[in-house]
Amino acid sequence: MAFHYPNGKPFETQAQSKLTPTTNYGSRGMTLEEEINLSNQYYLDADIAVVHKKPTPIQIVKVDYPKRSQAVIKEAYFRTPSTTDYNGVYRGFYLDFEAKETKNKTSFPLKNFHAHQIKHMQQCLKQDGICFVVMRFVTLKRLFVYPASDLIAIWHAATVDDGRKSIPLTTIEHDGFELTPQLQPLIPYLTGVDWLIQTKRGKNHE
Amino acid sequence: MAFHYPNGKPFETQAQSKLTPTTNYGSRGMTLEEEINLSNQYYLDADIAVVHKKPTPIQIVKVDYPKRSQAVIKEAYFRTPSTTDYNGVYRGFYLDFEAKETKNKTSFPLKNFHAHQIKHMQQCLKQDGICFVVMRFVTLKRLFVYPASDLIAIWHAATVDDGRKSIPLTTIEHDGFELTPQLQPLIPYLTGVDWLIQTKRGKNHE
Repeated sequence: MAFHYPNGKPFETQAQSKLTPTTNYGSRGMTLEEEINLSNQYYLDADIAVVHKKPTPIQIVKVDYPKRSQAVIKEAYFRTPSTTDYNGVYRGFYLDFEAKETKNKTSFPLKNFHAHQIKHMQQCLKQDGICFVVMRFVTLKRLFVYPASDLIAIWHAATVDDGRKSIPLTTIEHDGFELTPQLQPLIPYLTGVDWLIQTKRGKNHE
Repeated sequence: MAFHYPNGKPFETQAQSKLTPTTNYGSRGMTLEEEINLSNQYYLDADIAVVHKKPTPIQIVKVDYPKRSQAVIKEAYFRTPSTTDYNGVYRGFYLDFEAKETKNKTSFPLKNFHAHQIKHMQQCLKQDGICFVVMRFVTLKRLFVYPASDLIAIWHAATVDDGRKSIPLTTIEHDGFELTPQLQPLIPYLTGVDWLIQTKRGKNHE
């Protein structure tokens, strides 16, 4: 993956986007994670933001050190991450987010999130980080940036009151920011971040 | 690891520190990484900052899925990280740093850093992140927060001019911030971050 721009700036991608009907979007068989990773690489190469996916945490039990070759991990286990998958910096703002998709058509199931991720997002909000979820409705081919503050409120309501276990699409349409997929970056989530910053949504403000 | 404070604020640790002579510091056999991790846990529990060590990136080749038990990774390899080890958020500021130690007494060898880490710190500085290194001189029992901007300048001078391959301690004393180890947190690196913010050292300011 390398994008080269003579002046360090991205090419105008609007015209290019028009060459590729948006209805083709998602048909390449890439997961949301892969598309976010490509988008992060684009933002990094164009000096727009520095965001990386965190590696999957692994508990290493046994490592072999063969002569004249690299170490081989022979026994290890997946560990539960204690944070969200993505974080980084954009124009001085700390970004922290999770990317999740659903095949549902009318709501986004809360089971996509874990208690430790909700807690982590709360902690980051307290420190004035910009926290959100990139949500994809796979079947509908629709993408949203949804503020962590709204997710946290719904999560706690669901836990305490044994309430609804998913977020209605209408709620996400109302409180989130819909992204229009494009060619470069595939998932322009920073437009949603600009919206979060401008509207102060999802931020902890005194 | 859990610290409980009745009012969510850390206890005044100055008094406690005096009970533990600083000359004992480092004799517990903890690595710098372990001490930074404990300090991060302290900052997290006290709602002061949210900083985590990134997991070591692993290339997974083979996974077994035994019946009725968890997946076992049977073959995997260590990958080179593309970023620094630590990042997070503190009072709205994006923090990004590396922790390194040396047994040298008069200078800090540049071989402790890799080109990809230097590049990553440059990228984060461009986005107005707060980037630095926590440096420990093991033998001297001295600890510093050293601005990434100074490290980057010395790194490039060393590369281009085939210049000196280490940073003299006198330079680190002059351009860095010396930390006084204490009981809670063991490594109070945020005092160095406050200094970086106040003096605007290590920040990219127009």
